[in-house]
Amino acid sequence: MGTTQLETVPEPKYWHLKTVLSDALDSEFAVGEILPNERELAARFGVARATLRQALEQLELEGRLQRRRGVGTTVAPPRVGVAVDPARHTWPGAPGDDWQPIDAVESDSVPPAVARLLETAPDERVHVVRRSRVSQGQPVAAELLYVPAAAVPGCADADPLGGPARARAVLRELQERELDGQDRTVELGSARAEDAKQLDRLPGAPVLVVTTRYVSGGRTTAVAVSTYRADTCRLTFGESTAMPLLAG
Amino acid sequence: MGTTQLETVPEPKYWHLKTVLSDALDSEFAVGEILPNERELAARFGVARATLRQALEQLELEGRLQRRRGVGTTVAPPRVGVAVDPARHTWPGAPGDDWQPIDAVESDSVPPAVARLLETAPDERVHVVRRSRVSQGQPVAAELLYVPAAAVPGCADADPLGGPARARAVLRELQERELDGQDRTVELGSARAEDAKQLDRLPGAPVLVVTTRYVSGGRTTAVAVSTYRADTCRLTFGESTAMPLLAG
Repeated sequence: MGTTQLETVPEPKYWHLKTVLSDALDSEFAVGEILPNERELAARFGVARATLRQALEQLELEGRLQRRRGVGTTVAPPRVGVAVDPARHTWPGAPGDDWQPIDAVESDSVPPAVARLLETAPDERVHVVRRSRVSQGQPVAAELLYVPAAAVPGCADADPLGGPARARAVLRELQERELDGQDRTVELGSARAEDAKQLDRLPGAPVLVVTTRYVSGGRTTAVAVSTYRADTCRLTFGESTAMPLLAG
Repeated sequence: MGTTQLETVPEPKYWHLKTVLSDALDSEFAVGEILPNERELAARFGVARATLRQALEQLELEGRLQRRRGVGTTVAPPRVGVAVDPARHTWPGAPGDDWQPIDAVESDSVPPAVARLLETAPDERVHVVRRSRVSQGQPVAAELLYVPAAAVPGCADADPLGGPARARAVLRELQERELDGQDRTVELGSARAEDAKQLDRLPGAPVLVVTTRYVSGGRTTAVAVSTYRADTCRLTFGESTAMPLLAG
């Protein structure tokens, strides 16, 4: 779409600049190339630094640019398609799952939104399993999986186990239950400090938060809160494995 | 989670302030209430205006605050759950669809990403149907539905019809085809000027972009690019109507 089509709509200056910059990225720069600094860019396009910065922020939101401390602003590779909705609806940790367990702790304080979904009492013990997901060699998502201790009674024995072994014990006991179904929500969020570290981003970076509810025996038995990098990921939801997912 | 848990992680000042502000929102402010201006807030929390602004941006990303020109910063209501993945997989415009057709034009220039999915030739005619979605009285999403003219040959007659009638003619002819399946991607984007207007936002506001591919007769027959307000929407994906979706 050329810029002329937009002229009937009142548009802020940064928006027009964004369109111009976007065209320049297509024609003059390669993926991974470092952009000139803000002073030079502002001079080249004859705009104020503040306007330039707004346009750069837009392009970052759209996944066209990456800004990294100590490196500068580079042209981003196309976003990676990450499958969120596998055709087979299975418990986390089932064969074929590409999340890696990191560790698990038992906690009696879960975020209020999670407690509401799990319908847990305020002081009820909940296992919190941390997992991470890597795609094409890059960390793409961090997850906290909440499982009430009452849903996996066998895991009381797992306490002496450390880190990943304990996480695996919780996941293993989940597999033994019948899974009735699952549903999901996707929303925009900002990375918590811990997730940001795992995702190699600054705290507060925009992320896509996927909340999955696993239902078993007529009630919510586990809730996963997965935080995907919004700059590098495109979440894919497929209906069946017979149909190829949208090309990355 | 209290702020103490975060102290082992190096956190930027705005991130700590965000946590403090978030607690203040919970305890001192009601939904819709206007926050004090930036100068007053910066003074109250003893931070620089730039730090305050970063924290406010975080809270806006998380859907806690809304900033509107001429009104100021208000406490946002909880996000609205919007179903994206109806249990019945149907063509757009099927009964029960809550999108409203606005108009349709025939075009020979579609965005390159859409042309790739549709596998259309560079000069092939494509119907572009504009639709909008309203939830609980608020505009929540704007959509452009791309249908190659060759897929709905009967709509050549629809040319003399104006606006919504023409859009409905395209949708009606789609319904007559067998739908093999559909898949979707969700990613972060920034609102195009036109969509922003429809969504009552500024161009460039963060949006969730849902791209749906409809497959019929073994090929992609339609592509919908739906732009949801990221500040007010939480997208819900359900497995079956038998299971209630995550509560709004």
